[in-house]
Amino acid sequence: MNLLIKNVYLDGVETDIYVEGKYIKQIGKDLVVTADRVIDGTKKAVVPGFVNAHTHAAMTLFRGYGDDMPLMPWLEQKIWPNEAKMNREDVYWGAKLACLEMIKSGTTSFFDMYHKFRATADAVEEMGIRAVVSGVCFDHFEPEQAEKCKAHNLKLYSDMDVYGDRIKYAIGPHAIYTVSGELLRWIDQFSAERNVLIHLHLAETEEEVTNSVKQFGLTPVRYLYKLGILSPRLVIAHGIYVDKDEIRMLADHGVKVVHNPASNMKLASGIHFQFKEMKEAGIAVGLGTDGCSSSNNLDMIEAMKLASLLGKAWRKDPEALTAAEMLDAATEQGASILGIKAGRVKERYLADLNLIDLRIPAFTPNFNFVSNLVYAANGSCVDTVICNGKVLMENKKVPGEDEIMEQTARIAYNLMSR
Amino acid sequence: MNLLIKNVYLDGVETDIYVEGKYIKQIGKDLVVTADRVIDGTKKAVVPGFVNAHTHAAMTLFRGYGDDMPLMPWLEQKIWPNEAKMNREDVYWGAKLACLEMIKSGTTSFFDMYHKFRATADAVEEMGIRAVVSGVCFDHFEPEQAEKCKAHNLKLYSDMDVYGDRIKYAIGPHAIYTVSGELLRWIDQFSAERNVLIHLHLAETEEEVTNSVKQFGLTPVRYLYKLGILSPRLVIAHGIYVDKDEIRMLADHGVKVVHNPASNMKLASGIHFQFKEMKEAGIAVGLGTDGCSSSNNLDMIEAMKLASLLGKAWRKDPEALTAAEMLDAATEQGASILGIKAGRVKERYLADLNLIDLRIPAFTPNFNFVSNLVYAANGSCVDTVICNGKVLMENKKVPGEDEIMEQTARIAYNLMSR
Ligand SMILES: [Zn+2]
Ligand SMILES: [Zn+2]
Repeated sequence: MNLLIKNVYLDGVETDIYVEGKYIKQIGKDLVVTADRVIDGTKKAVVPGFVNAHTHAAMTLFRGYGDDMPLMPWLEQKIWPNEAKMNREDVYWGAKLACLEMIKSGTTSFFDMYHKFRATADAVEEMGIRAVVSGVCFDHFEPEQAEKCKAHNLKLYSDMDVYGDRIKYAIGPHAIYTVSGELLRWIDQFSAERNVLIHLHLAETEEEVTNSVKQFGLTPVRYLYKLGILSPRLVIAHGIYVDKDEIRMLADHGVKVVHNPASNMKLASGIHFQFKEMKEAGIAVGLGTDGCSSSNNLDMIEAMKLASLLGKAWRKDPEALTAAEMLDAATEQGASILGIKAGRVKERYLADLNLIDLRIPAFTPNFNFVSNLVYAANGSCVDTVICNGKVLMENKKVPGEDEIMEQTARIAYNLMSR
Repeated sequence: MNLLIKNVYLDGVETDIYVEGKYIKQIGKDLVVTADRVIDGTKKAVVPGFVNAHTHAAMTLFRGYGDDMPLMPWLEQKIWPNEAKMNREDVYWGAKLACLEMIKSGTTSFFDMYHKFRATADAVEEMGIRAVVSGVCFDHFEPEQAEKCKAHNLKLYSDMDVYGDRIKYAIGPHAIYTVSGELLRWIDQFSAERNVLIHLHLAETEEEVTNSVKQFGLTPVRYLYKLGILSPRLVIAHGIYVDKDEIRMLADHGVKVVHNPASNMKLASGIHFQFKEMKEAGIAVGLGTDGCSSSNNLDMIEAMKLASLLGKAWRKDPEALTAAEMLDAATEQGASILGIKAGRVKERYLADLNLIDLRIPAFTPNFNFVSNLVYAANGSCVDTVICNGKVLMENKKVPGEDEIMEQTARIAYNLMSR
């Protein structure tokens, strides 16, 4: 299946893009090629598909279920009792709705962490999107649970051949307060031998830092350093509470960081994410939405705007965190973190592409497309989404979207009331 | 012209709404009335039209024209030279695009401040939206300019009978650093005699406070108090830098305040807007987007989310600034600030209404409609907009929208290049 996108704006210039199989084969004006399908790019701009580098897809089921609450009562009354009831079907439909929502707002790849790995992977497989799905791990400092987690992840890894090339496996130790140092060391070894990513929440709240110092005698990043598990395979979500030396440690070991502005603000975790300092140290920084239970949506355009506005605000610097830096974080950086050759509109890159509808107020006038995309638009500006060379959305409609929404709503109401 | 909205969700219950002329006449299940037009409200929820309580409509022309820049070079190189060139036609089209953008995102009323009053008022008149338009005032501390401003506003006020009841006049002294104390006193007198609102930027930046103390020996609110111009007719935009005593002064005099989170963050003006303290003191607090030169769009749903997230973040309190408080600020409070009987879906109120499309991921599942509206949705969820009893948008399309966008883009490019 080959695609030809005709007359689309790329960096302000009209061009054609020829997609052969899953790759961008050729970019140029008036291409003379034969394609199975031609897409009219008139009055549209092409950007790389967005990469949501930290989320919990199936948590769409919890959207709006207990907002404006303090963290612990919310977890104890709203989230944990219902998560305990969740079966494969629940996670599958929650993830399916997440994939739909991501496609509708231009996200073509995401980095997930949730229980019931296969339910999420199946949803991804069917929806045509790309994901690195993490096998969740925690032992609550009990050796028996650690053994279960090991066995579970060994099995998940060895069964990965049932999935196509859009789905990759990672191991997901939840956090340092739920996973013992021994298990973290095993995970690091496991990931090194198989070259898979490690997906870890870290340095998200002040309380986590205080407890880390109390329990391990060290701040979170120093604790990981001491365990010897800082590596280019490690991706940490949040990383708000890190000092200068810790930024240096992360950079020196090639650790990647994912910033989640909506979640950090809404849960009041902290505002001082050090985007600029991390970039200057050479760290790859991506953007994520976190789960819908804390950010409420999966809109990466909103994540870009929030990250920039929050960064400018706390730094008291309107020049900080530019629109172009945000788009880079949400595309190329995210793709590099996930280890996929996407995130750029360039020949030989994966054809993960969004066509943006320029005929809306957000792009009127259009002095600066990137600025309009990040600061004026939102996910609803995405008209066409292509992932792995396949068209997943055209004219802002995904085939079967109404059925997915209806079924997932039923599943969610049923879950909370059973 | 009478309208009947059938089977729409209001506070979670399906009902009918009958609109007679410009007012909501009757709300109830299975109304038996004869209407000129019936609107199917199935799978939609009704909310009051949003009130954008501080903006500069025509600045849509500057969208994306110089972002990520420090304030003074941006004003000196990008904004001021082009504003100096603007003619009536430019402002008219800029305001028309603003009205279109507001309608498309569910705003039915706005409080404007910009030069060329009539150009904005004409755009509002034609677009069917509601506005309080402010006659801008500044004298730069020169008596001659003060006289011009007085004459200009006396004329604007006396000519208001050319406009219908959707457009009201206010007087808009720009700020205390551009308008002398003498002129501010005259404005207060003028507004008291005619019972019109005063629209003033105040306490927006630290620099403004420092300069106020230097120039007048007092912080901004205390300076206004000394001038004797704090009153229920005064609406201040921003009000970030106010202390406890100043909040008391504002409350005691019935002054209203408008919070503009996007602008405050993007220009790095300040994050500590004291929503909670002001509410507790009894101040009516509305929400605004500010002009598109600083906030980049006019989406009031985004403004609600930003206000809540920013407030929770700096207060370190996930319970602060709830979704319901934000919706109240963006509707009922805004309407009360503008002095219009709107902002509620209630009999005898003005029929300024939005029908929200519930068949999108943001409302799936829909455990809490208000939470989903504020935290998960954005302006694109608005399907139908009614203002003053007239349908301005249906199925997310405003008649003539493409022509308005095309013409305004031409006007903007022409302005910047002439
Ligand atoms: Zn998370
Ligand atoms: Zn303003």
